[in-house]
Amino acid sequence: MSDYSPPPGRPISPHLPFGDRRDAPWYNRNILSVRQFARADIEYVFGVAKEMREMVGRIGSFDLLRGKIVANLFYEPSTRTASSFLAATQRLGGTVIPISEVHYSSVAKGESLPDTIRTLEAYADCIVLRHPNVGAAAEAASVATKPIINAGDGIGEHPTQALLDIFTIALELGGLDGLTVTLVGDLRFGRTVHSLARLLAQFDVKLQYVCPEILPMPSAIREELDQLGVKQLDFSNLDGALATSDVLYVTRVQKERFESEIEYASVKDAYIIDTDLMARAPKRMILMHPFPRVGEITRAVDADPRAAYFRQMENGLYVRMAVLAMVLGKA
Amino acid sequence: MSDYSPPPGRPISPHLPFGDRRDAPWYNRNILSVRQFARADIEYVFGVAKEMREMVGRIGSFDLLRGKIVANLFYEPSTRTASSFLAATQRLGGTVIPISEVHYSSVAKGESLPDTIRTLEAYADCIVLRHPNVGAAAEAASVATKPIINAGDGIGEHPTQALLDIFTIALELGGLDGLTVTLVGDLRFGRTVHSLARLLAQFDVKLQYVCPEILPMPSAIREELDQLGVKQLDFSNLDGALATSDVLYVTRVQKERFESEIEYASVKDAYIIDTDLMARAPKRMILMHPFPRVGEITRAVDADPRAAYFRQMENGLYVRMAVLAMVLGKA
Amino acid sequence: MSDYSPPPGRPISPHLPFGDRRDAPWYNRNILSVRQFARADIEYVFGVAKEMREMVGRIGSFDLLRGKIVANLFYEPSTRTASSFLAATQRLGGTVIPISEVHYSSVAKGESLPDTIRTLEAYADCIVLRHPNVGAAAEAASVATKPIINAGDGIGEHPTQALLDIFTIALELGGLDGLTVTLVGDLRFGRTVHSLARLLAQFDVKLQYVCPEILPMPSAIREELDQLGVKQLDFSNLDGALATSDVLYVTRVQKERFESEIEYASVKDAYIIDTDLMARAPKRMILMHPFPRVGEITRAVDADPRAAYFRQMENGLYVRMAVLAMVLGKA
Repeated sequence: MSDYSPPPGRPISPHLPFGDRRDAPWYNRNILSVRQFARADIEYVFGVAKEMREMVGRIGSFDLLRGKIVANLFYEPSTRTASSFLAATQRLGGTVIPISEVHYSSVAKGESLPDTIRTLEAYADCIVLRHPNVGAAAEAASVATKPIINAGDGIGEHPTQALLDIFTIALELGGLDGLTVTLVGDLRFGRTVHSLARLLAQFDVKLQYVCPEILPMPSAIREELDQLGVKQLDFSNLDGALATSDVLYVTRVQKERFESEIEYASVKDAYIIDTDLMARAPKRMILMHPFPRVGEITRAVDADPRAAYFRQMENGLYVRMAVLAMVLGKA
Repeated sequence: MSDYSPPPGRPISPHLPFGDRRDAPWYNRNILSVRQFARADIEYVFGVAKEMREMVGRIGSFDLLRGKIVANLFYEPSTRTASSFLAATQRLGGTVIPISEVHYSSVAKGESLPDTIRTLEAYADCIVLRHPNVGAAAEAASVATKPIINAGDGIGEHPTQALLDIFTIALELGGLDGLTVTLVGDLRFGRTVHSLARLLAQFDVKLQYVCPEILPMPSAIREELDQLGVKQLDFSNLDGALATSDVLYVTRVQKERFESEIEYASVKDAYIIDTDLMARAPKRMILMHPFPRVGEITRAVDADPRAAYFRQMENGLYVRMAVLAMVLGKA
Repeated sequence: MSDYSPPPGRPISPHLPFGDRRDAPWYNRNILSVRQFARADIEYVFGVAKEMREMVGRIGSFDLLRGKIVANLFYEPSTRTASSFLAATQRLGGTVIPISEVHYSSVAKGESLPDTIRTLEAYADCIVLRHPNVGAAAEAASVATKPIINAGDGIGEHPTQALLDIFTIALELGGLDGLTVTLVGDLRFGRTVHSLARLLAQFDVKLQYVCPEILPMPSAIREELDQLGVKQLDFSNLDGALATSDVLYVTRVQKERFESEIEYASVKDAYIIDTDLMARAPKRMILMHPFPRVGEITRAVDADPRAAYFRQMENGLYVRMAVLAMVLGKA
């Protein structure tokens, strides 16, 4: 947490003071980066997300955010993330202003991001922002009086994705300390694995990397994790890392990353998870994927109880419910 | 119902058991085909839809599906159907995840239909699916643990459209037995008239066909109806069928179906309903159309009390409310 | 109000009588034009909008329109207006059918506006219509049994924009009589300034015009205001009008209006509001803009307390809440 100072609690808007000024630790704060989350913060999110999961399991929806409006401002399409935040808001009794086609909309007619943000905060209580540019969420937060939740800013961050990933591991395996997590696929450009690695570094974990030579974990992140005492091991193939893995976290290796079809063809099969590989994997290992998948995990694997990716997606609902409740002063 | 076995009641999802496990006959079942609806089923839908109509007339909306989320997954645009399901859900107090531009969205980035379905069922309680491919709804149902409602799968089925059509006839004319229903226009490619004919075959009705030579009712359907004892008559023009019609069900004859402009021009005027034709039609006959219309019925006809197409559209609301309530265990 | 007769209160739909038939003056009426609003009507809107503002400030949302459905039918994109009506409906406990991409949707497949309107009123309780053609809202109202709210019909009218503008002036300056309002920019094609001028003419105000020679206030409007006794003054530059201005209402001067880049370049800088200009402006003057802005007001001005444009946007929420409540019989 050295280089990042989370924004202090801000006063609520003078125009829409909804009567729930709270001393809650996350009230009216922005969620911009996983760097805001120390171990205690992560555990706090877990606690709230578990409550959300229990409530949804018992009664489906409830009215914690009744009357609250969340603006879903998506400058690039991400139906999965948008739907997840929408469902999270709805299961808490709130409503959403969805703006998913910014390129067609008047907010895009040359209008600056700050103007769009200040417009939306006149209507909504919280803004979930997806933007192609790194730093867009921080820029939005700098002008907003309502909380901003970063739902992905280019190759920057997507903190709720990392939180749902680590929540899934904790839920499936009963905790995080002592685990070995193997990250597979594109470790160079994968925003997802970078953020997840940073969150895992708050716990006593070992990381294993399995990736094509041209797509390694960036050295800046390796050094950051080194300094936090995280043991990191490289593997040239999946089988070498398999036996010691508690978690196999698979990401997509995109053809576009390679210079030639031949180069791509030479590596792509090395990172496909099928039932044969699962037969050699540890019994209590779980298999994760941020989705969408395009062949990295064969559909036959879905029936394996260790395939945790659909539960992972469901956990996204609970984690986003938790984060929304936190910044809106209800958790 | 010989060749189709409706799926048995399935256990609710282990992850989101909302406390309303019911012995209701349609609870958690898929609505994929009109073939699932025997006469008693149709009458059951009528009963629930009538209750919905009465409640909407009295209080507009009510909270039968409060807290429930319906995913409206539309792989092709159909604002009418999407809006109708949206309004139906809202009038029952539920909320909707609308996904109407699948071609832009991440669910379309090469992701398979099963993965998209399993994603959405992690967030929603029910999925309404519109897809260009025949069989898509059945494929979705094969992987889903939440109920799937087929809102049109290519030239396949669109069961709620057929149910609202037959509900309208029953409501307008006080019943179905003994009626003569005249189907007009494109009887060859019209998904709507095929499904309606199959539902009508559960009652004691006579069918009359008025269509261009190149767009006849398919022989497979004729034979199916023959075996069920439905009397079917062909007419070369509207006037021949008019006097005996209790229902005139008009569909659009699309120019694209014809080989030449000349061929199209030679028939199109034969199927236009105007005030002259209505003047020759029976007094208690009703005029229906699935909409949108593009000239098949002139606007001057709208003022005729026998023009039932706007009431037909409104009935779509009640029938979809009924179907949603049924599969979500509330009817 | 000489040439315009507002439509009389109409009976509610025979199909969806929601039990709130009211003697409220605006119940079930259309909102098509600022010409419907005499001084007493404007003040009535102010009263309801102030109540809305107070309620939102105290509790955020409340259930005045619970169970009501508003169709947002946008034939051209206007995310700002659509979001504002959506938020207004949601803060009143109602729900929205959003139809924002009519060009892709089935309602556009050659379907007439009247058919689309009659379809939507089968599902919704009120229709907010944005359309590129002048008169579209009136055409919609002529076939609808549910109230139509004009949210912009081409270069025609956008009455709720004008109402929120005048409401903002009244709220910021404590009233309207005796004020001098300076309209800046494109006064020829600006729907916004035409409607605002007409509303202001109901009060004892003086209007000042600052615009490029080729973009003057149309003479028809000048004469209309003359007859109502409104004093109108022309200025060739901002500084001449500044000292006497209580309100500076700035609009965008679009490059497309000019015959050449050179002509455009010669005037555009004359209408830019920056901190230097604000330093010369009266202390109690307020600065307004209908947004989006593209450089007419520099961002440094945002910090000036006289910059009222974000509050103006927020007032759009309250005015639209007021109008919705009025036509739905709840105010």
